[in-house]
Amino acid sequence: MGSMYQTGLNKQTANYSSLTPLSFLQRSAYIFPDKTAVIDDDMVLSYSNLYRRCSSMASALAAKGITAGDTVSILCFNTHELLESHYSIPMAGAVLNALNTRLDANALAFILGHADSRILFYDTEFEPLVQQVVTAMAQPPLLVAIARLAGAPSSSSTLLYEDLLASGDPECSWSKVADEWDAIALNYTSGTTGEPKGVVYHHRGAYLAALSNTMAFNMTADTVYLWTLPMFHCNGWCYPWAVTAVGGTHICLRKVQAELVLDRITNHRVTHMCGAPVVLNMLLDNFRKHAATLSMPVKFALGGAAPPSPVIGRAQQIGFQITHLYGLTESYGPSALCVWQDDWQDLPPEELALKMSRQGVGLLGIDELNVGRLDGGGYVPFDGQTLGELLIRGNTLMKGYLKNEAGTREAFKDGWFHTGDLAVVHPDGYIEIKDRAKDIIISGGENISSQEIEEVLYRHPLVLEAAVVALADEKWGEVPCAFIALRDSPQVITDEEIIAFCKANMASFKAPKRVVFGELPKTSTGKIRKNILRDSLA
Amino acid sequence: MGSMYQTGLNKQTANYSSLTPLSFLQRSAYIFPDKTAVIDDDMVLSYSNLYRRCSSMASALAAKGITAGDTVSILCFNTHELLESHYSIPMAGAVLNALNTRLDANALAFILGHADSRILFYDTEFEPLVQQVVTAMAQPPLLVAIARLAGAPSSSSTLLYEDLLASGDPECSWSKVADEWDAIALNYTSGTTGEPKGVVYHHRGAYLAALSNTMAFNMTADTVYLWTLPMFHCNGWCYPWAVTAVGGTHICLRKVQAELVLDRITNHRVTHMCGAPVVLNMLLDNFRKHAATLSMPVKFALGGAAPPSPVIGRAQQIGFQITHLYGLTESYGPSALCVWQDDWQDLPPEELALKMSRQGVGLLGIDELNVGRLDGGGYVPFDGQTLGELLIRGNTLMKGYLKNEAGTREAFKDGWFHTGDLAVVHPDGYIEIKDRAKDIIISGGENISSQEIEEVLYRHPLVLEAAVVALADEKWGEVPCAFIALRDSPQVITDEEIIAFCKANMASFKAPKRVVFGELPKTSTGKIRKNILRDSLA
Repeated sequence: MGSMYQTGLNKQTANYSSLTPLSFLQRSAYIFPDKTAVIDDDMVLSYSNLYRRCSSMASALAAKGITAGDTVSILCFNTHELLESHYSIPMAGAVLNALNTRLDANALAFILGHADSRILFYDTEFEPLVQQVVTAMAQPPLLVAIARLAGAPSSSSTLLYEDLLASGDPECSWSKVADEWDAIALNYTSGTTGEPKGVVYHHRGAYLAALSNTMAFNMTADTVYLWTLPMFHCNGWCYPWAVTAVGGTHICLRKVQAELVLDRITNHRVTHMCGAPVVLNMLLDNFRKHAATLSMPVKFALGGAAPPSPVIGRAQQIGFQITHLYGLTESYGPSALCVWQDDWQDLPPEELALKMSRQGVGLLGIDELNVGRLDGGGYVPFDGQTLGELLIRGNTLMKGYLKNEAGTREAFKDGWFHTGDLAVVHPDGYIEIKDRAKDIIISGGENISSQEIEEVLYRHPLVLEAAVVALADEKWGEVPCAFIALRDSPQVITDEEIIAFCKANMASFKAPKRVVFGELPKTSTGKIRKNILRDSLA
Repeated sequence: MGSMYQTGLNKQTANYSSLTPLSFLQRSAYIFPDKTAVIDDDMVLSYSNLYRRCSSMASALAAKGITAGDTVSILCFNTHELLESHYSIPMAGAVLNALNTRLDANALAFILGHADSRILFYDTEFEPLVQQVVTAMAQPPLLVAIARLAGAPSSSSTLLYEDLLASGDPECSWSKVADEWDAIALNYTSGTTGEPKGVVYHHRGAYLAALSNTMAFNMTADTVYLWTLPMFHCNGWCYPWAVTAVGGTHICLRKVQAELVLDRITNHRVTHMCGAPVVLNMLLDNFRKHAATLSMPVKFALGGAAPPSPVIGRAQQIGFQITHLYGLTESYGPSALCVWQDDWQDLPPEELALKMSRQGVGLLGIDELNVGRLDGGGYVPFDGQTLGELLIRGNTLMKGYLKNEAGTREAFKDGWFHTGDLAVVHPDGYIEIKDRAKDIIISGGENISSQEIEEVLYRHPLVLEAAVVALADEKWGEVPCAFIALRDSPQVITDEEIIAFCKANMASFKAPKRVVFGELPKTSTGKIRKNILRDSLA
């Protein structure tokens, strides 16, 4: 850069400030002070109220000694307290650590210790669990109880969330982080192997991820967003910040149950919602039982697992407009998006659903997605065939893993984030994930994608959910084993019929050799826990 | 920030890259290779074509020796060449300097010299003017002619734009700027005092301004954007980048004439357009003549001058959805936006138009707008009455003025950009400008410096004193009115002779439309009291 453009043209207060999603709340509170920001069971908050509550809590946290770089954890459902924490905690300069509500005491104690958490906000529904956790810890965090539906905490000396908030100053002046690379949130991966890893997000990334998401999901000030996706999962894919950026309305939801969800959609005229395929599937099942459809279209961003194409097809028929997103904790949630192409509109429904079930292309905040050859150098061709590892780079990838330099180095080696997902690139440049690296079944030397078999199983009218894993086999090394949850139905079906159905719909060597019927174990975010299924076969 | 969050969590290739609007074109070319990106009189470009042309030109510029920090200027209409230059020039690491097509030879020569411009792209419609400019320069830039409608350049040895482009490599690999604070564009203001100032934009600001604009204007991949706003004004308010970010379609337009505009709106199903009130007024006049309305709604972002409320009202009746934006060259174009409030929908049209004619609140990329007291400390109350100076801070403000450290310091003093515009804040927090920077006349969206006209007037042998102020005008918004005190002399002079003298000595559109002779009111220190002159015209 020539010196003329580098002289007397420096950053200063008037023309440079840190990118942070906290400014979204400040701006929306200025522009829409009286507009409804949050609807929850116990309170409705205007943007002005929301901002004042967050400012109060930020100053109360500061008064408790919380300062830059401290961790504050929270264990609660999708209620206004968790939404507020996405602002109040970073406004105090601290790092938000939202905890998965399905973790056990050991995992929670590990995380709180690893994160060096100073304060734990918790819903009193978790009172016994939390007591178990703090008893196990040498230096437990200060407890702050969210005591609403589930009643008072077990000890009367435990601080209450509303009391702490009320002790703060709603007019307090908080300051933006000096460096936009500073941490804003800490999210632990579920860690199928070994201990969970602490994924660190920064203010710049959270700002850009939120804007990318508003654009990917066409959100405006008219958006009414229903909180079906857990906010503890990648900070709700950054939608606590994104919905606020456009000045939309958050509809909180304590428990994701079909009747509650449908009630909220109708009563609050919901326009947008997110969730895993399992959540959508649950809703579709309910619609089918009542032979109902949506009275107005609802945009549904699907992610967290590859959606089987029959689920997409049925959802569109009922009135959901599906956006398929793909991402990981390490990428602030969504990093890929199956962008709609105009020439898809004339495709037959099944073919369209196949197009839409692909992971697609990078979100705006991502610089590049690519698929690296498994045999080393270079990238796979755009042939829809050659399997490789999905690689990502861009501004919406984590700072790294907390206290884990080796893990961070490994994840970011060769200038890419390594997802561990096996994918192909189609001729149109769209990426499709075929499997997690560890879910691929190698049978007689052939790679069989468990996802491809699941895709076929989902087309069967009696199949509600399906998961395929490798079963050790003397002859073939591994063979596919299908676990199936059936719909409520008077009809019965045998394992032979399932296998015959698969053989009729795919290469016969790929068909499952064994079928197990029953309920499928899931993670808190709706992902089927294949490791448990795998262990059950050992 | 605690050390735990600052250890082993550094920026690296996988998780950090410069924010630049160039990535928008790269991404849209990947996702929408066959979609129409640009429609111009002579060619229609897909996103893939557009990207390949820009890459070609970038590599051709590099082959001509253009490198980081060099300036490349362009003097042309809203055609694909100017749109391409928003990508090709910065892809070569250079700085885009888009020139106002209404400038005279002296002003152009000054700018090209001050910007140290290496190459000038120009439409051959400006052939005589450009020859005049380069003749006057000691070290003129290399000329590259855009020879389409207006024919070949005067010298057969002048390089042609299409030939230069064809010499490049459409597959060339260009690299993002290493530092997002590096300059991307240079735009000259008309200069209220003395010479025009060179406003420098950086990549980060251009990226954020473009995203703020897509959100302010609710743009999506379905956007069809008509180029009525000159791309040489603040880089077309960053819409060359914003439209591309969402993968919309650019409709080029060589001349803004009502029939041409209406033809494009109908034939290309235009969804979005921008312009000064004078452009909208011209269209409304045409609709009135034909007693026509729009067949589908068109979003019109109005800026460049405060829109008279009757214009807003008439536009809404015809089917334009008005968004009122306010900004300056120093703020990458739009920095304020009159955000729609739901409770306005029941207001009577006149009252609504008054609400909408206010400048409003900050765009997303702006941190803060405020109105500083004229008597020094603090800010004005939200009373809709107290006049102060509009102040702005945020990431979408210029790096500063090129080669003008004193001017930059003055503009950014006390941590704010000082607009020089006088404004009030209404009780709802919306800002309204009451009086433009005193000396500037905004005529048809063009800034005319009163001082520049005075400069010319003072050259006339019979002029003793001169002061120029804005006179309200139905067609142009404002036109210059000159107040002149003549020397004692036996000679006489008419207003027509004064106007003719101005036209002979400056761009003719800047010449006064009215001349008033008489003594000029002055302050005790001898300064002419323009406010009194202005009042005399009311």
